[in-house]
Amino acid sequence: MKKLIASLLAIGAASISFTAAAQFAKPEDAVKYRKAAFSVTAAHFGRMGAMAQGKAPFDAKIALENAEIVANMAKLPWHAFGEGTETSETKAKPEVWKQPAKFKEAADKLQAESIKLVAATKTGKEDAFKAAFTATAGTCKACHDDFKNK
Amino acid sequence: MKKLIASLLAIGAASISFTAAAQFAKPEDAVKYRKAAFSVTAAHFGRMGAMAQGKAPFDAKIALENAEIVANMAKLPWHAFGEGTETSETKAKPEVWKQPAKFKEAADKLQAESIKLVAATKTGKEDAFKAAFTATAGTCKACHDDFKNK
Repeated sequence: MKKLIASLLAIGAASISFTAAAQFAKPEDAVKYRKAAFSVTAAHFGRMGAMAQGKAPFDAKIALENAEIVANMAKLPWHAFGEGTETSETKAKPEVWKQPAKFKEAADKLQAESIKLVAATKTGKEDAFKAAFTATAGTCKACHDDFKNK
Repeated sequence: MKKLIASLLAIGAASISFTAAAQFAKPEDAVKYRKAAFSVTAAHFGRMGAMAQGKAPFDAKIALENAEIVANMAKLPWHAFGEGTETSETKAKPEVWKQPAKFKEAADKLQAESIKLVAATKTGKEDAFKAAFTATAGTCKACHDDFKNK
């Protein structure tokens, strides 16, 4: 059984290193992970943006699908900003590591607002969706202003 | 009746093409998205791998967190393999586009097994987790063999 699993993993996910202590084997893995998580989040956020801006007709089902994905994704990137993952190759400002409590607060706000966005979208009411979307987008902007280079 | 069905189909088709068109502005965006989604998936899959291989002690809570993330992520990459997103810059084989039904079947299997993995992990039983993990890893390998270059 162990052998089978090892072999499947070696073939199927060769680039992953299975250390239990650190969630990422190398700092580069953490950087790659957090960029990937933000990319997926941004794609789904953008799909709601078209509706929130009135550039696409409001579709409650599509909005909810995307809101739920964003709420799930919003939990993920933060553990990948650990010690030793500060690098000039990303847009993360040094403030991420200098002001960890403030960074955590900004991350928590996104998570809280994205949960509210799901609830608002579930009502099926366009106005509720738009208001909650705007509030969520505000948490993105606030965090980017403080912690992300342009 | 025929007219009603035709009209419903027209609406259905319209909403499908609207969705597909609106989802990615450029083929590169789709490629970036699917790579990102797989990266996040692989990171969480790998964390379970350490436990499945016995390299880390089984922790039902951590295993479940990762299993749930994998089950959510497993839904995402497939819509980013649309027409026009075949490029030599990725490891996706041409078979993805030549055998779409087979590719969809492979994707469906990952989703089905990852849902079973969540259920198995919820039992808190290490053996159930390991068996379901192995089954899920098998769907990764099968799909990679057929649809991904090394």
